[in-house]
Amino acid sequence: MKIGTIRDGAVSLPALIEGDRAYRLDDLLGAMGGVPVAVPDGADAATVLANRELTLAARAAADALPDLVSRGAAPSYPLYSLGPPAPRPRKIVCAGRNYAEHARELGNDLPTRPILFAKLATAIRGPFDDVIRPLEVDDLDYEAELCVVIGTGGRRIPKERALAHVGGYMCANDVSARNAQLGQGDQWLRGKSFDTFCPIGPWIVSADEIPDPQALTVRCRVDGILRQNGSTGDMIFDVATLVSYISDAFTLEPGDLILTGTPSGVAMGQTPSPWLQPGQLCEVEIPEIGVIANRIVAEVTPA
Amino acid sequence: MKIGTIRDGAVSLPALIEGDRAYRLDDLLGAMGGVPVAVPDGADAATVLANRELTLAARAAADALPDLVSRGAAPSYPLYSLGPPAPRPRKIVCAGRNYAEHARELGNDLPTRPILFAKLATAIRGPFDDVIRPLEVDDLDYEAELCVVIGTGGRRIPKERALAHVGGYMCANDVSARNAQLGQGDQWLRGKSFDTFCPIGPWIVSADEIPDPQALTVRCRVDGILRQNGSTGDMIFDVATLVSYISDAFTLEPGDLILTGTPSGVAMGQTPSPWLQPGQLCEVEIPEIGVIANRIVAEVTPA
Repeated sequence: MKIGTIRDGAVSLPALIEGDRAYRLDDLLGAMGGVPVAVPDGADAATVLANRELTLAARAAADALPDLVSRGAAPSYPLYSLGPPAPRPRKIVCAGRNYAEHARELGNDLPTRPILFAKLATAIRGPFDDVIRPLEVDDLDYEAELCVVIGTGGRRIPKERALAHVGGYMCANDVSARNAQLGQGDQWLRGKSFDTFCPIGPWIVSADEIPDPQALTVRCRVDGILRQNGSTGDMIFDVATLVSYISDAFTLEPGDLILTGTPSGVAMGQTPSPWLQPGQLCEVEIPEIGVIANRIVAEVTPA
Repeated sequence: MKIGTIRDGAVSLPALIEGDRAYRLDDLLGAMGGVPVAVPDGADAATVLANRELTLAARAAADALPDLVSRGAAPSYPLYSLGPPAPRPRKIVCAGRNYAEHARELGNDLPTRPILFAKLATAIRGPFDDVIRPLEVDDLDYEAELCVVIGTGGRRIPKERALAHVGGYMCANDVSARNAQLGQGDQWLRGKSFDTFCPIGPWIVSADEIPDPQALTVRCRVDGILRQNGSTGDMIFDVATLVSYISDAFTLEPGDLILTGTPSGVAMGQTPSPWLQPGQLCEVEIPEIGVIANRIVAEVTPA
């Protein structure tokens, strides 16, 4: 199933996706009748996948969805109503240099164990929201990535059981300001976590529909031009290894996000570097999941 | 005022500190009568300082506290009931190498702008909780630090107004596993964020009682032996500069924590390095605030 988060005014609500329309989960459960599960206030797509009872209710609604749609039993929303599937993750852990071609294009050795860094939750944006280029940044870069959404938490999760802890997958853009990333005692946090630097979505595809997360294509387009076109099969550390390794250090919690690294083709790897410019549209596509499309906008000087 | 978080079974509750006893805020407000403010479920010390109405109620209770205590009007709890004042911060942003002597003891150049990295909320521990040395770590180090608790959020906060955004101050130990910190493409996250690597407390002292955050002594003791003894006056980037600089990149939110760096005297700076060992007691003291004292415990091998 595809589960997203609808923005309805100031409120967020989990929704199922069918074709190019979104349906509120509470509407669907109401139309089905006989499903005595209330969607809690403040719930979103990640909340649903983190809660077994809600996940089961959502699955029942997904099964009934074609019939409900054909009967016009629930109102529908356009996809542009979708906000970030996980608006407030407690953790965003990212793997750096996790594709060999990408490490090489930046002149780096291949890592012998995962390089982990964090993004902050204030960087999260929806699938069709603007990315704001900060005043002090002129070297804005894209990084198309597969994003893992943890469904079941744990610590010291063995690699063999790691995929059972994944609730679903989505697209992410690990937007990066290169000078800010690399010029600060080499700590990447600031250049990776400016506000709006983590658009995600467009929805979460539940893990049962992605039997092999190492068989996905990850693409980035800027104004329609293909810039990245990699395969998750080329990850140095695969999803199961990352989940296990990360959980050896940090307790993973439902709704935590793991960004799994980017394939080659980033602006920094090219001469001259085609940095993202205000007005451009940056897309991340994973065909088995969907596409996020974010316009780059220059930050307005404070008054 | 000193405001902490009492652990009462699985529940956390904000509490005021008077001498060596803690008093639940809801008990105090009840005993006072006429203060129509309910302490919400799940509140903690940071929640109170992030909410203007609750802060005002807590101040009224702090003013009334000596009288209430002398009348025996509210039950009291021992300080060992205290958990972390901010159990679930949304952000923990840390400044690296922010004391010149500490940068020098590690052989590093002085930073020309703040070096920022993150710790994860799953690392938070209470003021008297154990710190667990992970199985794979044999080079565990302490870093005594002044921790800033954001009271009022904002972005691009000017330095001149930055201290008005601070709700209070507490002690923190930026526990660090040096090989894990420095051996991963130089990204510090993993070595800094193992579970239990961020004990904080013992309570938050509200900002009005710390007129000059650059005039505090920061000490670390291991088994009673003084290891660090610095002054916040020696910070390279002071609290106002850090708050302003961090807010230029990331929107600060009420309850966010900023760890402001550690003075010299860490184990890594000594030969041989006196790494923290299981059984040792590691204390961080800021006399104007209080003391946290955390026992080092070896992680048990999983069954």
